[in-house]
Amino acid sequence: MEAPQGVIETDAVIVGAGPVGLFQVFELGLLEVKAHIIDSLAYPGGQCIELYPDKPIYDIPAVPVCTGRELTDNLLKQIEPFGATFHLGQEVSVVEKQQDGRFRVETSKGTSFLTRTLFIAAGVGAFQPRLLKIDGIEKYDGTQVFYRVKNPGDFAGKHLVIVGGGDSALDWSLNFAQEGPHRAESVILIHRRDGFRAAPASVARMHERCAAMEMQFVVGQISGIDEAGGRLTGVKVMGSDGVTRVVPLDVLLVFFGLSPKLGPIAEWGLALERKQILVDTEKFETSIPGIFAVGDINTYAGKKKLIVSGFHEAALAAFGAAPYIFPDKRIHLQYTTTSPKLHKVLGVETPTFDD
Amino acid sequence: MEAPQGVIETDAVIVGAGPVGLFQVFELGLLEVKAHIIDSLAYPGGQCIELYPDKPIYDIPAVPVCTGRELTDNLLKQIEPFGATFHLGQEVSVVEKQQDGRFRVETSKGTSFLTRTLFIAAGVGAFQPRLLKIDGIEKYDGTQVFYRVKNPGDFAGKHLVIVGGGDSALDWSLNFAQEGPHRAESVILIHRRDGFRAAPASVARMHERCAAMEMQFVVGQISGIDEAGGRLTGVKVMGSDGVTRVVPLDVLLVFFGLSPKLGPIAEWGLALERKQILVDTEKFETSIPGIFAVGDINTYAGKKKLIVSGFHEAALAAFGAAPYIFPDKRIHLQYTTTSPKLHKVLGVETPTFDD
Repeated sequence: MEAPQGVIETDAVIVGAGPVGLFQVFELGLLEVKAHIIDSLAYPGGQCIELYPDKPIYDIPAVPVCTGRELTDNLLKQIEPFGATFHLGQEVSVVEKQQDGRFRVETSKGTSFLTRTLFIAAGVGAFQPRLLKIDGIEKYDGTQVFYRVKNPGDFAGKHLVIVGGGDSALDWSLNFAQEGPHRAESVILIHRRDGFRAAPASVARMHERCAAMEMQFVVGQISGIDEAGGRLTGVKVMGSDGVTRVVPLDVLLVFFGLSPKLGPIAEWGLALERKQILVDTEKFETSIPGIFAVGDINTYAGKKKLIVSGFHEAALAAFGAAPYIFPDKRIHLQYTTTSPKLHKVLGVETPTFDD
Repeated sequence: MEAPQGVIETDAVIVGAGPVGLFQVFELGLLEVKAHIIDSLAYPGGQCIELYPDKPIYDIPAVPVCTGRELTDNLLKQIEPFGATFHLGQEVSVVEKQQDGRFRVETSKGTSFLTRTLFIAAGVGAFQPRLLKIDGIEKYDGTQVFYRVKNPGDFAGKHLVIVGGGDSALDWSLNFAQEGPHRAESVILIHRRDGFRAAPASVARMHERCAAMEMQFVVGQISGIDEAGGRLTGVKVMGSDGVTRVVPLDVLLVFFGLSPKLGPIAEWGLALERKQILVDTEKFETSIPGIFAVGDINTYAGKKKLIVSGFHEAALAAFGAAPYIFPDKRIHLQYTTTSPKLHKVLGVETPTFDD
């Protein structure tokens, strides 16, 4: 069957670029399978990077301590020889079995694949912006309320209110408050307390901009909205003094961080158990042959949501997938320590030893 | 039940101090279970140290490359907080279920345990000296033929023939050839070629001793023995010139390295499949409740002999064992990144983070 134009034909697509998805690249690579890897975040690492980049992890075997960022960096280094293709900042929206046994996979950015095997390493789900929960605000989504900045030029010359205390909130506040092509008419940063998880240097710069009257910082929480003529005209902010004031605006930018959502995976027809994907413990294959699930998103008797378990699952899933990719080849387990074939695949020299 | 004197009462005994046995200490430690660990070798590390201490391993997740020695050192560092007790240089000879549900475990050195749970992480089996295979030689085992040196004083003043090309052969040759309390009457080192796997410095020292006429080195292979009056009087050595000569001796020391043997494990009544211990994939428990098997020694549907699989198995076996050790406690999975309780167990500080 010929693929429609623009469709990527491949042996393996991995959904999720967290530690287990990355190690899935490695285990497939050892079997000489090249993979495409999709993640909703704009960078690899998944939860490790999004939720605890700088917190120490102690239970990776033979790694007495590392941060989420170090774990990700080490895995990225380890999979370098295998040339996986990353498709970041996009979620898988469609998975459909084709007549020839392959799967059509499509992402929210329109990237399209025909793949023999699919590995779901989606952890706790695709990370989505945490929403501001105020009655009636959702109808301004994408017109006056934004959780991401796609084109900064759209906000130039506007009265902006920015909410949040992390790097995104601080960086965008500074960006729109300073001289430049995207300078806003006014910038008001709102955070619920006078303490930030953003980089201290950014916080210091923000206070400088405020002192220079180029922007304002308000401690408070948004408790409601003001509307007029079908438009959002302001937000009600309860200050630390207990008084609620209205802050007028053209645009509200919300940066509350990201939280995971299972999303469309629930609709791919896979057998689930309490929102987890049911797999066997031999190949970590789902109820649909050719689709495997590894890491925190799967379940089986005895399942513990441990990174080390995801690594094991990825290894066995790779062997489980091999017959779909190489129907005529017998796959033997080889060791990275001794196999000249694996050394070639890894791009390292086979050492010689005296006996 | 009171334990007989000298018996160590404990919650967990681990058989095998290879990487998986060491990580078993870690996973039990996180559940606040202290372990005793037994190994036939005189040092921890198992195969990794015995078979490939200096060869690179590439498939430990998040460790792009390490040697067997580095892997062992990192695991030893990781388990430091858990104060496991090592019982090295001894094999488990007896495992017997007691009336109270515990297991009596005895080693070849007479160390004796009463334990609630037992973890077999014995890999390819207990490492035993590789034997010199010459007809009739076995009857001199322990009287004139030795594979280990227990008391060097036993060999002082004797005519020694030492066979092998590794560190043990070289080190003992030098030890018995030099001035000192253990000096032999004569030392002849035999190796099948003029190339050694021993440290180059030891080889150089050996050549110096030979030049000083304090010992001899012969290139050749032992092809037979000479006997007289019920005693071993010499070995027949075929030299590189194809000529066989008799080398007279009082004592023959053989250092051919170690090779693994399943040994008495086969007799403990565990269900086996092709010499592997059959386990479930939920707890990695054997056919005997309370006995778990992890790593290369076990088998189940899909089993691959990978270190990463052993690590996963050790994690699940620890959770599987907890009900035997804490019958009244519910065990919840906690994360090393976030759990103050695990931080206490690990002996690290719980970090504080801005939100």
